[in-house]
Formats: sequence, C-alpha cells, structure tokens
Amino acid sequence: MKIGIFGTGIVGQTIAEKLIDLGHEVMIGTRNKENLLARKEPDSFGRPPFIEWHKSNSKVGLGTLSETAEFGELLINAMQGNGTISALKSIGDELLSGKILIDIANPLDFSQGFPPSLTICNTDSLAEHIQRTFPELKVVKSLNTMNANLMVNPRMIGEDQTVFLSGNDNRAKDTVKHLLQSFGWKESEMLDLGDITTARASEQLLPIWVRIYSGIGNPMFNFRIVFGKNPTA
Amino acid sequence: MKIGIFGTGIVGQTIAEKLIDLGHEVMIGTRNKENLLARKEPDSFGRPPFIEWHKSNSKVGLGTLSETAEFGELLINAMQGNGTISALKSIGDELLSGKILIDIANPLDFSQGFPPSLTICNTDSLAEHIQRTFPELKVVKSLNTMNANLMVNPRMIGEDQTVFLSGNDNRAKDTVKHLLQSFGWKESEMLDLGDITTARASEQLLPIWVRIYSGIGNPMFNFRIVFGKNPTA
Repeated sequence: MKIGIFGTGIVGQTIAEKLIDLGHEVMIGTRNKENLLARKEPDSFGRPPFIEWHKSNSKVGLGTLSETAEFGELLINAMQGNGTISALKSIGDELLSGKILIDIANPLDFSQGFPPSLTICNTDSLAEHIQRTFPELKVVKSLNTMNANLMVNPRMIGEDQTVFLSGNDNRAKDTVKHLLQSFGWKESEMLDLGDITTARASEQLLPIWVRIYSGIGNPMFNFRIVFGKNPTA
Repeated sequence: MKIGIFGTGIVGQTIAEKLIDLGHEVMIGTRNKENLLARKEPDSFGRPPFIEWHKSNSKVGLGTLSETAEFGELLINAMQGNGTISALKSIGDELLSGKILIDIANPLDFSQGFPPSLTICNTDSLAEHIQRTFPELKVVKSLNTMNANLMVNPRMIGEDQTVFLSGNDNRAKDTVKHLLQSFGWKESEMLDLGDITTARASEQLLPIWVRIYSGIGNPMFNFRIVFGKNPTA
C-alpha cells in the first residue's frame, strides 16, 4: 500500500522503517524540506539529523505535506500535536478528503516545563478537533499511548498489552486493525473504545505515561487492560 | 486500627466490610445521619437503602463526618469527588491535622450526561486541592482507578493489576501500602507515581475507565502497567 506519514521525527521514522520492511511504499512529509535537509547537527535528544537517517532509509520518499497527502492511500499523523491542525490546514481539504488518517499525535504542552499538560482535554481532544476540521477525513486515533518502538514491535515486551482505537468509521478502523496486526499486534490486544470522542480518553493517558516514564527512566512499558471472567456478561 | 470512612455509598460500604473482616474498628461518616437513615427506598442504581446494609453490617459504627474524623487513626475519602472539599471543610482543620487520608474520590461531573467530564484536571486534581486546603493532612491518592470490589479483592481477576499511589509523605504511603497488602495487593502491583501532583495522572484515567465500562458493560476490569526487561535500567 502507498502510505504517507506526516512528521519526520522519531515516531515518523520508526513507523516508516517498519512499513518499508513490510513491503509498503512510503513517503514521509515535512513542512519545510530545505530546513530539514539543512540540519547537520544532532537534535536536542542527541539523535542524528534526519539527513543521516534518510541515507540509511533511502527507500522512504521525502515530500512536502501536500505531496505526502497526495501520495498516501493511507495517512499517518506523527507530527507534534499542537502543530497538527495548522499543518493539515496547509494541505487543504481536497487532498485529504475520503482518506484514512491514523492520528498518533498527542496535544502535549511542555511550555511550562515538566510535567507537560494537555492543550486540549476533558471535553475535547486533538483527534476530535481534526475530525471536526476535516469532516471528510476518516480519523482513527490509535498508537498514541506508547513508545514508538512498541507501536511497531509490541513483542519487545513479553506480555500482552492494549492498543486503543477511536473513530467514527468502522471500515477505517478495520483497515487500521489490519495494519496493527502486521505490526505484531494480536487481535485480542486491540480495544475499540468507540467513536472519535473516545480519543479524549486515550489522550488523557499521556499524563500517567509521562509520570511512569519519568519514574522508571525507561519508555519500555505499556498499558494493558486486564479483564475478569466473562467481561461481556 | 481505628479507621474512619467518609461516604456511605457503595465504595464506603465495600471498604468498611473488608476492614471489619480484617479485624479493624470502623466508623462510616455521613453529612446527614437523619436523611441517611430515613431513606427506605433503593437508590437510583437499585441498591438497597443504607439502613438495610447497616443491619447486616452492624459492627460498622455510623457517625457524622466530624465524629468519623475524630474516631479514625486513618481516614478514607469515599465521598463523591465534587462534594469532598466542602464536606472536609465542615469537619475543620483540627480534627484532620496530622492524619492520613486515603483519597479514593474522583471529580467526575455527570451534569452534562454521558460521558462524564472531570471538574478538575490537567494542571490540578482533587487530591491536590484537598492537600492545599489541609496542609497538615497527609493525603495519599490511591484505589481511585477501579471498581470497589477490586479495591478490596484484586484477586477477583486472575491476573496481576496495577494500583497507583500519589502523595507527598512517604511514611503515609507506606502505611497505605501495608493496608493494600492486607486487601490482597502484591507489592509488585503497587506503583508509586510520586508526589501528590501525580494524582492528576491517575484521576485522568477515569475517562477511559468509564468508556471501557460502557463498552463492555461490566466493571470487572483493571489497568495494568506491563514492563519490558530491566525497567529500571
């Protein structure tokens, strides 16, 4: 499948690598190609510049956001949460209409230091904001509650975990579930929370994710919902 | 130990029964004894009136909030989140000062229907509000992320789960951990998130708890944090 990923950071890169391994055609999209390619220094986390990563992952196409939207039959939002709406607006309705967007972003605000707060929460969510802004886009919130490596390789942890899904379009959610399965997720690990308003619930897991990460100093953990017998009884 | 429980609803009742079983002396406190005892009809969830429950649990003392605060060496807040501050204010500083309060309440607001929102969240929490209002009280947030039956009998689910703790006083948290152990919690299931500001994180689990409950129609589930190898590496 042709898959377009918005966002050239660690999440976008990790997913792009996995999708190439799985035989997909992938384009990764950035707001500013020139700036991205001009950067020669490691980022603030000490990670090599994008151009270095791209040398060893040259099968991944690099495009503008609009080129990426046009390229992808399936789209993935791996940008920072707070820049998402303006970035998608710069693409415009026409190129997005009718497509599935897996929204992995979280509206984290680090401007006041640690711990981050959420710029949207409680009675709204980033995913709902995207869905409202682009009614013809099929937004599926998923994968936003874990480290990027676990997203595409959940079996790095030897125990079952839970990946949540929220979205209004059941066929779009089925497509995303199929992709998750190819990443190594078991069907029994996928928990469909309901329509896109349930993204409030999964985005509000970030505060505890951040605290646990800060406490143990390691992102290799995940949420799991454990059920008693006959959970549907 | 003498334990005082604020709140005569299902959470207060369930914990009171367990504490009596464990050999503690228990008083359960209400804002209005007369109203509570006058009620003869099942509540809106179809549960029998308090007076019926009390007949079969007569070892549990019934008091006003102040009597309960005075009685308890350890206090438990099992009231509705949004009434908590005014109820505790009616008790006053003096009776609360120096005591440990396990805060199980969540600031859920059902006034706009389903799903409930949180009246405090993101950059504040109910537990922090209590701690700010009563600086001499040792507030420990815990047990607020699950059904009442699981709080006192986690082994009803055949798998490990996670119970979170937040609080500024480490000795108070140790006392609470000891009590949790007597309820059936394993030490490996207890996750200390840090100081009382981390209660924001556990209170913000409620939105997803409510959605999962609504989806499966059964409260017999819980959160578990699963870790990769060497989580502290």
